[in-house]
Amino acid sequence: MSELKYDVLGIGNAIVDILVQTEDDFLAENGLTKGAMGLVSAEEQRALYDKTGQAIESSGGSAANTLAGVAALGSRAAFAGKLKDDQLGTVFAHDIRASGVAFETPMAADGAPTATCLVLISPDGQRTMQTYLGACVDFSPADLDPAQVEAAQVTYLEGYLWDPDPAREAFFQASEIAHSAGRKVALSLSDPFCVDRHRDGFVPFIEEHVDILFANEDEILSLYQVDDFDTAAEKIRGVVDIAALTRSEKGSVIVTADDTVTVPAAHVEQVIDTTGAGDAYAAGFLAAHTQGRDLKTSAALGGLLAAVIIQQIGARPSAGVQHLLQDLDG
Amino acid sequence: MSELKYDVLGIGNAIVDILVQTEDDFLAENGLTKGAMGLVSAEEQRALYDKTGQAIESSGGSAANTLAGVAALGSRAAFAGKLKDDQLGTVFAHDIRASGVAFETPMAADGAPTATCLVLISPDGQRTMQTYLGACVDFSPADLDPAQVEAAQVTYLEGYLWDPDPAREAFFQASEIAHSAGRKVALSLSDPFCVDRHRDGFVPFIEEHVDILFANEDEILSLYQVDDFDTAAEKIRGVVDIAALTRSEKGSVIVTADDTVTVPAAHVEQVIDTTGAGDAYAAGFLAAHTQGRDLKTSAALGGLLAAVIIQQIGARPSAGVQHLLQDLDG
Repeated sequence: MSELKYDVLGIGNAIVDILVQTEDDFLAENGLTKGAMGLVSAEEQRALYDKTGQAIESSGGSAANTLAGVAALGSRAAFAGKLKDDQLGTVFAHDIRASGVAFETPMAADGAPTATCLVLISPDGQRTMQTYLGACVDFSPADLDPAQVEAAQVTYLEGYLWDPDPAREAFFQASEIAHSAGRKVALSLSDPFCVDRHRDGFVPFIEEHVDILFANEDEILSLYQVDDFDTAAEKIRGVVDIAALTRSEKGSVIVTADDTVTVPAAHVEQVIDTTGAGDAYAAGFLAAHTQGRDLKTSAALGGLLAAVIIQQIGARPSAGVQHLLQDLDG
Repeated sequence: MSELKYDVLGIGNAIVDILVQTEDDFLAENGLTKGAMGLVSAEEQRALYDKTGQAIESSGGSAANTLAGVAALGSRAAFAGKLKDDQLGTVFAHDIRASGVAFETPMAADGAPTATCLVLISPDGQRTMQTYLGACVDFSPADLDPAQVEAAQVTYLEGYLWDPDPAREAFFQASEIAHSAGRKVALSLSDPFCVDRHRDGFVPFIEEHVDILFANEDEILSLYQVDDFDTAAEKIRGVVDIAALTRSEKGSVIVTADDTVTVPAAHVEQVIDTTGAGDAYAAGFLAAHTQGRDLKTSAALGGLLAAVIIQQIGARPSAGVQHLLQDLDG
């Protein structure tokens, strides 16, 4: 087995978020489903952007946010994702490296610009997203570094990467490389609409390739097309080693073949912006899990980091969070 | 006299801020003077950026921030400044228009990229800036729309615009157009180092062209190379119609030929980021002044908006502030 260099390697879309505060009326007027992520063309995104208020830009991308969180918690992190060599590509590459994540995927010299996600933040903190995938659609197996996959304890795949075809190929290749090297594969289901788009691909992929699955309640219900959380939890039991199911203010439920661990949500004073909450949960869980902590501690660290993220604007921790695991260890 | 279309037209550098939280040690290690704005090359800025932590991007530029504030307070605002037609140029143009400011300066198709300011925010909220002027150095008299200047009650010039030569030319032309149309000219001294660079130009320009001068204590001391605030205030008295002198937590002092109005600072719970405090003061002052309010009310509104800005990250108001003047009117 090759040397263990990373606790977690993430593979996902490399996206810069454009964050705008908005009213719910604006969502309705523009036919947007609150809380959802929609894929749009550059022109569609621009048309909506032209109607929004003043924004701020902040590096995003679901798996990239998770890996930034993993690094912020003191674990060894790497990320792979496709950028164009443009101003926003420079921003993304700077931020992911500045957060302590190894990032070596070559930037595209030509083609579509770096991906952007227009994030509309409602007064209650819920976010609605319109993503233009840009350069991300060119992420392909050639962008994978097999040595990096072999050197990572867990390879974490973002479900959104199922949207572009060549990236999906990279999914399968990464899983095979990881398992051949005796490593684990984790998958995040990303969003119920993403699950709906790709259910027929996800179900067998999960059965055959995934060791650790992250899903929120809506996503796991969508995966199995059932109405009831307990039914969905029983369906995933034993299909993967660990299913980490998040339920917002109800906390999270960890389902293994022969155990169910329920962990309450961390205290939240005021929800500011839910962007990245699920990403942060996965970060906390994986950081603790790869350091050998038990399921309860791992779920608790996930919940704590998610609580930090939803009490700030933006999807990555801006303040020091390295103490969170020690706090839990008490 | 042409029709009055704007309360304030701002002319300044069109810059996107890159905001990073930093420790004071980092400033010292990199030879930076805390609180100052330094002009750097693209390469110098990049070298420093590569050493900083995760950032967020937010439209900035001193006069642009002021005009965004003027519009946020419900007054009619326009801005002129030079962008490149690139991703950050798109961001700046979107944000200034989204904040309700008329912005028509043509973007450059070629040449240097849109300007960026690396803003290092210390734990005490003080900010230290490294600006790469990029496309701003190409702002020239040709970018001025004389009709816009004639249609603005006040043309507000940012002292930083004195740095690039063609922009300085535009300064003089704008002042002449404004005065010929019976309008007023305001100037912000921007920064004590800027004053130090351009004292010999500023002193006669102020005497001949400026009706309303904005300066903080360090800037007015630097302008007249004196050590004492009262001495500096007496030197500016009568040189301009109104000198609005800000003194941080001591509030502001408005000096006219025969009056001195002292207004205490607004209450601040916690200083988060002082970026844009002076810009916000000018916005509040001008919004009230152009609506015919007295000097005391104008200074108070300036102080209130500055207090809002230093209690958030970024230089432009993110929350609704339109009520502030009504609150003052009681």
